[in-house]
Amino acid sequence: MDTLPSCHWEMLCIFGTGDLGRSLGQRLFQTGYKVVYGSRRPHSCGPLPPGTQVQSMIHVAAAQSARLVFVCIHRENYNFLETLAPQLKGKVLVDVSNNLKKNMYPEANAEYLQRLIPGAQVVKGFNTLSAWALQNGPSDASRQVYVCGNSLEAKQAVIEVATKLGFTVLDRGSLTAARELEDFPLQLFPEWRLPLQLATGLTAFFFFYLLIRDVIYSYVVNDKDISFRIMASLANKVFPIVSLIMLSLCYLPGVIAAFLQLYRGTKYKRFPDWLDRWMLCRKQLGLVALALASLHVLYTLIIPIRYYVRYRLAAHTISQIKENKTSPFDTTMAWRTDSYYVIGILGFGLYLLLGITSLPSVSNVLSWREFSFIQSKLGYLTLFFCTFHTYLYGWDKFLQPSSYKWFMLPGYMLSLVVPSVVLVLKLLLLLPCVDSTLTRIRQGWERTDPEQERKKLLLT
Amino acid sequence: MDTLPSCHWEMLCIFGTGDLGRSLGQRLFQTGYKVVYGSRRPHSCGPLPPGTQVQSMIHVAAAQSARLVFVCIHRENYNFLETLAPQLKGKVLVDVSNNLKKNMYPEANAEYLQRLIPGAQVVKGFNTLSAWALQNGPSDASRQVYVCGNSLEAKQAVIEVATKLGFTVLDRGSLTAARELEDFPLQLFPEWRLPLQLATGLTAFFFFYLLIRDVIYSYVVNDKDISFRIMASLANKVFPIVSLIMLSLCYLPGVIAAFLQLYRGTKYKRFPDWLDRWMLCRKQLGLVALALASLHVLYTLIIPIRYYVRYRLAAHTISQIKENKTSPFDTTMAWRTDSYYVIGILGFGLYLLLGITSLPSVSNVLSWREFSFIQSKLGYLTLFFCTFHTYLYGWDKFLQPSSYKWFMLPGYMLSLVVPSVVLVLKLLLLLPCVDSTLTRIRQGWERTDPEQERKKLLLT
Amino acid sequence: MDTLPSCHWEMLCIFGTGDLGRSLGQRLFQTGYKVVYGSRRPHSCGPLPPGTQVQSMIHVAAAQSARLVFVCIHRENYNFLETLAPQLKGKVLVDVSNNLKKNMYPEANAEYLQRLIPGAQVVKGFNTLSAWALQNGPSDASRQVYVCGNSLEAKQAVIEVATKLGFTVLDRGSLTAARELEDFPLQLFPEWRLPLQLATGLTAFFFFYLLIRDVIYSYVVNDKDISFRIMASLANKVFPIVSLIMLSLCYLPGVIAAFLQLYRGTKYKRFPDWLDRWMLCRKQLGLVALALASLHVLYTLIIPIRYYVRYRLAAHTISQIKENKTSPFDTTMAWRTDSYYVIGILGFGLYLLLGITSLPSVSNVLSWREFSFIQSKLGYLTLFFCTFHTYLYGWDKFLQPSSYKWFMLPGYMLSLVVPSVVLVLKLLLLLPCVDSTLTRIRQGWERTDPEQERKKLLLT
Repeated sequence: MDTLPSCHWEMLCIFGTGDLGRSLGQRLFQTGYKVVYGSRRPHSCGPLPPGTQVQSMIHVAAAQSARLVFVCIHRENYNFLETLAPQLKGKVLVDVSNNLKKNMYPEANAEYLQRLIPGAQVVKGFNTLSAWALQNGPSDASRQVYVCGNSLEAKQAVIEVATKLGFTVLDRGSLTAARELEDFPLQLFPEWRLPLQLATGLTAFFFFYLLIRDVIYSYVVNDKDISFRIMASLANKVFPIVSLIMLSLCYLPGVIAAFLQLYRGTKYKRFPDWLDRWMLCRKQLGLVALALASLHVLYTLIIPIRYYVRYRLAAHTISQIKENKTSPFDTTMAWRTDSYYVIGILGFGLYLLLGITSLPSVSNVLSWREFSFIQSKLGYLTLFFCTFHTYLYGWDKFLQPSSYKWFMLPGYMLSLVVPSVVLVLKLLLLLPCVDSTLTRIRQGWERTDPEQERKKLLLT
Repeated sequence: MDTLPSCHWEMLCIFGTGDLGRSLGQRLFQTGYKVVYGSRRPHSCGPLPPGTQVQSMIHVAAAQSARLVFVCIHRENYNFLETLAPQLKGKVLVDVSNNLKKNMYPEANAEYLQRLIPGAQVVKGFNTLSAWALQNGPSDASRQVYVCGNSLEAKQAVIEVATKLGFTVLDRGSLTAARELEDFPLQLFPEWRLPLQLATGLTAFFFFYLLIRDVIYSYVVNDKDISFRIMASLANKVFPIVSLIMLSLCYLPGVIAAFLQLYRGTKYKRFPDWLDRWMLCRKQLGLVALALASLHVLYTLIIPIRYYVRYRLAAHTISQIKENKTSPFDTTMAWRTDSYYVIGILGFGLYLLLGITSLPSVSNVLSWREFSFIQSKLGYLTLFFCTFHTYLYGWDKFLQPSSYKWFMLPGYMLSLVVPSVVLVLKLLLLLPCVDSTLTRIRQGWERTDPEQERKKLLLT
Repeated sequence: MDTLPSCHWEMLCIFGTGDLGRSLGQRLFQTGYKVVYGSRRPHSCGPLPPGTQVQSMIHVAAAQSARLVFVCIHRENYNFLETLAPQLKGKVLVDVSNNLKKNMYPEANAEYLQRLIPGAQVVKGFNTLSAWALQNGPSDASRQVYVCGNSLEAKQAVIEVATKLGFTVLDRGSLTAARELEDFPLQLFPEWRLPLQLATGLTAFFFFYLLIRDVIYSYVVNDKDISFRIMASLANKVFPIVSLIMLSLCYLPGVIAAFLQLYRGTKYKRFPDWLDRWMLCRKQLGLVALALASLHVLYTLIIPIRYYVRYRLAAHTISQIKENKTSPFDTTMAWRTDSYYVIGILGFGLYLLLGITSLPSVSNVLSWREFSFIQSKLGYLTLFFCTFHTYLYGWDKFLQPSSYKWFMLPGYMLSLVVPSVVLVLKLLLLLPCVDSTLTRIRQGWERTDPEQERKKLLLT
């Protein structure tokens, strides 16, 4: 007792002396718990964590010694636990195990354990932590412990231990959530996959499209090698195009959903699955688009320090002098380019604001009225600015035949299709008559088809 | 029982089958609760949430069936609840209602409900969530549920339900806080209103001031149309001016408060209301100023790609060649402009740091000594850098008569007034004798006027 | 009772009417508690918080009146509490005191208090708050209250009070943590000290190194005063150099640790202290490096608006015309400079991503697999991009003898040493045979030296 740090907390039992079991035991011991390891033969549990004063007992004795038993062994070895069922009766079994792949087994490890030893109270927990966090306590990405289990008392006991180890505990309900918890450490940005794939696909498409239209066309037709433009000029066309399309794709599902609700006359019918999934990744779509927009900004700002640009400007000045003619100052041009840049800056500023408010700690302090104001109202404003910025970029280029090389539309025109459609549809939804109907539907009102009504009455 | 998902939690009763009641019921059912709706006649509560297996009973039976009753009806219809007082006695009534406007009624809905049914334990809660969050569970801006109520046990029961639904619960104390909770969903950035109004006002003023001084003056006096400069050049003067003034306004109230404390000789007298309100919106003032400063940075960085600037530079080079004279390199000019830019960059960098540390999740991990170090010490340093940046911009322009067109001072001079005053006052406060007195006052020491002391003694 | 706001919560006692005691009393009263101050003589506790209706009793009576006693007096005055031991028996004593310096006393104030009055249940708490937060409730940097104590019930009572005051409570375990809590308000970015010192040292070194190499060399050898370049050009060399070195220093300890584990054949041996400390400040190293990289970006972007650069460009154009020769367009140069800029932008973009994911609220929502993916995989990619960016900057400069002024290597070469070493070592670790061994070691496998094994067996 004297060698224990500060507190004399209860005794805990750990089954399994693999990495997980040893890390957990070390941390528990350091926090002030008495830890005992279960093993097949007494004093044979292999190398125990250095510096710890833990005991090793045979399984039966170990199981009896503590109220909480941490199961840190692989699922394949669970069956031996069945023989300990009498000793484990009424105990809290904390299943810390993880699998190597998703869907390896029909039921979650914790549920399997509960089925093996029905008399015990199985709690899933700690499995979302890295061995590093188990050994050293909470760190940056490992502050939260998720637990689930059918017995409230058992969960409470586990929560107490986790809190004492310094973690924040989130109760995820009954043991049916175990599957979800076991999948959690295996996941790698699941909600980012679709937006990233989309961004990659669009980027690749527009890269090759513009490569053909600009570089290869110039090589074939004009016999001029401008391949050096791939690095910066071409990328600075691809990024804003993809960014604008993805930004508009954030707002398209909302518009589609509104029209679907208007058509159906109720909000109580489920959306099709693809629409649901689309709506759930809007935040990620927007953030990927923001990243691309930021790249576009940086690519644009380095324009004047690029060798190619400096060379061209100097060459232009020199040619003006040699030909002894000075082009007059074009006020329209000044207005147009300045507007083009300024609208772009304002759009990007709003965009950054949307990004900042989607930080978890910022969105947490907003009321949902504030959140929806920013993400909806300011979001459409951002989309409008960015679309307008692109229209200003185009200006009267669509009138020049040289814009249609090999009958391919310039990239910026393609990028304008989706955002323009979204903005027009949104304008339609803002018409007073449409808006009021939609608001009523969203407040729970349902348009009842007179015929259907009659049928219902007949049925009852 | 068999069709219920996983857990068999207690039965809950919901009054009201509007949008709110139905969304809440659906979510409660999905989480594993048994839900019963109260209605006037049995089995007549209207369309229930699709896919749910909820019952509908007459009000009396429904109220008796559950310990928790969610009241999701409009306040105007509360009076019928009075007839259920015997059944609701000892029950927990969760008031989920919201009003359409602030201050519609003299007392909060929840307090009114408590007055109607004194035997029930009224808890205000869930009303800060959107119907969407109620139906689908926690999402970005809707993780937190606020509750308040006079009975600790009743609150505990509600907190348990909310936790099971996946929300984080914040206890806001007794039922007197209900008014605040009912106002919460109606608020739209209340603490941002003043700073945004100020920013708009200042921006408008300086825009028209500089419009007259630069564009209109040039049109009237020199007959030159430089209106195209409105878009970028003028804006890039207005933004930094307003930003600097607003940054200094963040620090002015602190300085005023310090002088007030020095004058009064105590910290235990309340500040005037306007000063209190001013101090409470300093963070928002600073963030709006940071947004404007960021726009200033972007506006400045696009300078070299603007048509107007490129034209002017080329024209300058051409004129030099034609007149066959080259202006010599001016080392002072190089020092001055580089210093001007560099000080601006450093000021902006510090400014960004202040912005980042004001993110909730960052400021939460700082000790208050660290937070005050950053927001005060680094804050004044930022103000100093930005003011110095503006002085360097001015340099010797104040000596040139051409700066005073139509007897109007240049914008940058106006912007320097408040920051210079703040910095001078702060320097005064840093004088050792003043500083030590202020520190003592802030530690609770009070300067006692000898005369007052005597009066006090006479009175006691 | 009637004048109390809303709730009739229990009575609390405060010892000490200094700044802390008065602020705390005011807040407690406003929240609805009855507050009584202990004093030597009845009704003589000095000026009480304005507007509060608190009583002042002699210490004995005050101590008896409440279950919770807040001790807001200096440690030096604790000894008088010993005389109150009979009255304080079984009470909860909340030690709110702080010291002026670290390590002033051999034991923490709270532990000293517990020793003085063994019969009381001492809880350390509230001391991490500023007096301002105590008086006005939670604000930006003061939301969290840390408590520690040996009695769970006593802590629970304190947690309840803190929660009612609006704070978030974190239980830090037993009273041995009191020392840590008392040190907390005194700390000023302890984990940032080393990285900031390193950054300052490296910046100073490279500043003087490049000052000699560029400016002084030019002055001595060419008799040309280019001191104006200190402000922007020199700084824009120093910042990226220091940033790259510090970024690579984030990844060096991980590589060293891996080789150490490979050499030792186990992960269960502790790393040397210097390595542990180094690894713990990697996040801060990286963020300081990010700040410097951001400055480098801004310094680079203002290049085209600098007077010196504009002058040089114009002079170059003019000289070309005068000599009537035009330098041909150099495609390699265009490729090279564009690649150099683009790689830099991509590196900086990834770098920003690393910075954003290290925000507490963002890293909290990541699983540790996701966190380690970003901080490790994307981190090495960032290091690679930034190193490659520097190599592209150098290009063939190392071939030109003019690069070695006074036998001093150019700054960028020095900056490439550490990152190149780190990248090569990391590549070695990624070799399949090395990688698989390391993975096994990290999963808990230990290489057992056959000789050692034998020795062990002999010993047992």
